[in-house]
Amino acid sequence: MEAHDALSAKIVGNVGFEGVWASGFAIASSLGLRDCNEASWSQVLTIVSHMAEATETPILVDGDSGFGNFNNVRRFVRALGRVGVAGICLEDKLFPKLNSFIGSGQPLAALEEFCGKIKAAKDAQDNAQFSVVARTEAFVAGLSIDDALQRAEACWNAGADAIVIHSKSTSGDEVLEFARRWARRSPLLAIPTTYHASAPPAMLHEAGVSAIVWANYNIRAATRAMQSSSRAIRETGTPAAIEPSIATMDELFDLLNYAELEAAERRYLPLKPEP
Amino acid sequence: MEAHDALSAKIVGNVGFEGVWASGFAIASSLGLRDCNEASWSQVLTIVSHMAEATETPILVDGDSGFGNFNNVRRFVRALGRVGVAGICLEDKLFPKLNSFIGSGQPLAALEEFCGKIKAAKDAQDNAQFSVVARTEAFVAGLSIDDALQRAEACWNAGADAIVIHSKSTSGDEVLEFARRWARRSPLLAIPTTYHASAPPAMLHEAGVSAIVWANYNIRAATRAMQSSSRAIRETGTPAAIEPSIATMDELFDLLNYAELEAAERRYLPLKPEP
Amino acid sequence: MEAHDALSAKIVGNVGFEGVWASGFAIASSLGLRDCNEASWSQVLTIVSHMAEATETPILVDGDSGFGNFNNVRRFVRALGRVGVAGICLEDKLFPKLNSFIGSGQPLAALEEFCGKIKAAKDAQDNAQFSVVARTEAFVAGLSIDDALQRAEACWNAGADAIVIHSKSTSGDEVLEFARRWARRSPLLAIPTTYHASAPPAMLHEAGVSAIVWANYNIRAATRAMQSSSRAIRETGTPAAIEPSIATMDELFDLLNYAELEAAERRYLPLKPEP
Amino acid sequence: MEAHDALSAKIVGNVGFEGVWASGFAIASSLGLRDCNEASWSQVLTIVSHMAEATETPILVDGDSGFGNFNNVRRFVRALGRVGVAGICLEDKLFPKLNSFIGSGQPLAALEEFCGKIKAAKDAQDNAQFSVVARTEAFVAGLSIDDALQRAEACWNAGADAIVIHSKSTSGDEVLEFARRWARRSPLLAIPTTYHASAPPAMLHEAGVSAIVWANYNIRAATRAMQSSSRAIRETGTPAAIEPSIATMDELFDLLNYAELEAAERRYLPLKPEP
Repeated sequence: MEAHDALSAKIVGNVGFEGVWASGFAIASSLGLRDCNEASWSQVLTIVSHMAEATETPILVDGDSGFGNFNNVRRFVRALGRVGVAGICLEDKLFPKLNSFIGSGQPLAALEEFCGKIKAAKDAQDNAQFSVVARTEAFVAGLSIDDALQRAEACWNAGADAIVIHSKSTSGDEVLEFARRWARRSPLLAIPTTYHASAPPAMLHEAGVSAIVWANYNIRAATRAMQSSSRAIRETGTPAAIEPSIATMDELFDLLNYAELEAAERRYLPLKPEP
Repeated sequence: MEAHDALSAKIVGNVGFEGVWASGFAIASSLGLRDCNEASWSQVLTIVSHMAEATETPILVDGDSGFGNFNNVRRFVRALGRVGVAGICLEDKLFPKLNSFIGSGQPLAALEEFCGKIKAAKDAQDNAQFSVVARTEAFVAGLSIDDALQRAEACWNAGADAIVIHSKSTSGDEVLEFARRWARRSPLLAIPTTYHASAPPAMLHEAGVSAIVWANYNIRAATRAMQSSSRAIRETGTPAAIEPSIATMDELFDLLNYAELEAAERRYLPLKPEP
Repeated sequence: MEAHDALSAKIVGNVGFEGVWASGFAIASSLGLRDCNEASWSQVLTIVSHMAEATETPILVDGDSGFGNFNNVRRFVRALGRVGVAGICLEDKLFPKLNSFIGSGQPLAALEEFCGKIKAAKDAQDNAQFSVVARTEAFVAGLSIDDALQRAEACWNAGADAIVIHSKSTSGDEVLEFARRWARRSPLLAIPTTYHASAPPAMLHEAGVSAIVWANYNIRAATRAMQSSSRAIRETGTPAAIEPSIATMDELFDLLNYAELEAAERRYLPLKPEP
Repeated sequence: MEAHDALSAKIVGNVGFEGVWASGFAIASSLGLRDCNEASWSQVLTIVSHMAEATETPILVDGDSGFGNFNNVRRFVRALGRVGVAGICLEDKLFPKLNSFIGSGQPLAALEEFCGKIKAAKDAQDNAQFSVVARTEAFVAGLSIDDALQRAEACWNAGADAIVIHSKSTSGDEVLEFARRWARRSPLLAIPTTYHASAPPAMLHEAGVSAIVWANYNIRAATRAMQSSSRAIRETGTPAAIEPSIATMDELFDLLNYAELEAAERRYLPLKPEP
């Protein structure tokens, strides 16, 4: 499930998801930026670092096209290892990349170059549990299913721990067919933003998809909620009407564990005067 | 109206508020941190810088107790000037401060020291429009109205452009009385998180309050919305039920002006192959 | 004259140079990194921001190949404007770039694409004094003087405020010939790291070069000095022998203006107890 | 041996020192700032993180007075752990601290509060090898040797792994006496900036000092070297005279391991065209 800051990552973990998707699109949105590498890798790293501090739930970091060449990939992977995330997802587009839902016919990276990045990422990870996930945008770029399979195959051979097959079709047919032909050769992820209605999770799983990425739902939920609340206060001049539908201050204090602070003060500041 | 990242700042501006309150509590929450200066001033600055890039609406930055002494205040004010925000609010607590809703009887800074910070902030601003707002936590600390007035008076004399009188009472009586006795000597702000029901904006304005800070509503709205959406997807296995109540991808693309990117590509990348 | 951190920038200004060259190579070296965009643009920005705080001397920032495409260039230029530097230098290599002294036959950017970056940089600057300098690596890439002139001409037409003609020859002949044929059409800069002996500044100026960039001398001086001093202390077990050849603590206190702090304390902390 | 950036840290390691002292004073100087917590803890962390990437030599980070209270200390220690340094040194001054060589009679933290920070630091470390070093400024503050011993004793009881006894006397007598009376109860460090001539390392060791911190020699060496080189180029208009006394470009390429990059390109970019 998508998160874009430490608070959303904490919520994703608390709700019980097995993993956090540190979405490039959602992080960019929260920064007021567009999903075309307007944020630098070190800015993304800072945010991911806050996420990793905030939750024990494993975080898969959307690494876009790797922020440059194989060397930038290596450096980013090493930095992610220090921060303590579970893995990185790299996609076979150029740098700077553009969000897959914008325009059409986006150019892909040469397959050998992309596989070099996957290999570099695997060599750079410093703990055995770290996962490097390869995402092919073959369908997004208008290529055939054979191309998509060939790209996935090459990534798998280059050492990828899992494959993401991306698509912006509304039917999900190409993803389903890919999954069937991929035949569980490796863990396979799908991102059914546009096709979850026509190809629901059960159908995807049956076809061979191992896991689903809900890639942008928290930023979309937060955006609408902030628009509604801001507008309500602006128009009515008071938060009276929205109070029941927003978190209380105490809920936030609980979520962020303010209670621990008081306990720690007793331990480390024994002489603090009683109020 | 509160904002805690560039996206919320943009929303606040779009909805028509005259100003953005870059809330220390809300920014900390979004970072997964507690409102006791767990975030450094430079981390706050980075976030505020993204906000200022994202909206033309003037931003008043919650500067807490100033991140140290007068010298830290000066440095923060100069940095804020470069970033392009409208002003800073400084409160008369110690460093590190603690959120005003936690515990009771928080110690205040010596008045002379706090006034030194106000003076330092005014001396450090590099454009005439920048505002230094002084917030007294006299009521939060359990002091009398005379103390509160004395503190406000000293801040005003030290050069503050406006006063914030803070309170966590549920009645708003102490704020109303303060406002009446302050008698519009300066711009006066109130933060009626706990007392907006008993002392609605109109009553506050009539008593002499110039402006209201809705200090935490966007983070509270976003939190609840992300909790609900994440839980719904987690429990039902699909976003189908929540799709109608969250922003669409296209709404986010509009909000973040992806269209400008395509126009710019035509200007700066004339040779890009047509898809 | 090169600087790579705020201290070196301050020294460059104090010595009387008209400008600071915020060198990508030197900044990377100081970060322990290689000059192939291992540092992100935002990391470079942070360092440049400290430089601009430390000196009034105009700073020309080595922007390498622009950290991506025209859009990354625009964003970097806007950020530099906020920081308050004098200009940016962009070179016609790909991203990530590699230091010009490494290897040979480095590929160049397509000229139209590079000119799009120059144009984007000029459009993005928010004050009229900001300079966009275009650096052609035609000679470094092994191209002819006609190619170099064509590239410079295109950059000049795209709006560049000045041209850098780079070369790693030891004779300087190609730079001299370029300068003569360019015939003072625009401000022209040279970086004679490898050829200052054979083509000294006077000769370059006479040929039409307007200004010289001493691009790496402070980092090289600092490196050797630190190696010698560290080695001396390590080997002799005492700094006795090197004390006369290093700055004193008081010199650093003067350079960094500690005296101002004491004056400010008297103004802003009047009640501080006398020692 | 002091380092203030990744390059100096690398040099310190290469020369053979057992440890790097990431000096607050030197880091501030390199940032153009004064040693009174003008840099935020997160800015220091960023620099220390680059150092840790650049050298395998253990790094002891000058944590000043801990950047706030026990909670800021805990957070800084956890962050240092992620970055991979060997330990932190905390001193018993207030926040913001001021460099010990400036003024006299600096106020110290209440001993119980300082011990709370030591305890918090020990509790926060996430690997058993991490060291928390307690530095008492008793002599700097003008206190007696009994006070100094009492402070050291309390820190040792609070869990400190080593003690630093600081002094700015030129004789070293107070440090020698402290060391004798401390009688090797714990590892003991001294910083003989002002007294290395009168109390050379051998004498300090004999009195019971376990290790010496050369706390500011690289920044002082670099400063003088950059001043001389910049001045020479400025005055003579050419680097000809200084070339023999500064590092060559190739030395920097070696130091920063550019050769690895070429090897990696062969592994990860097999299709890159031969020049």
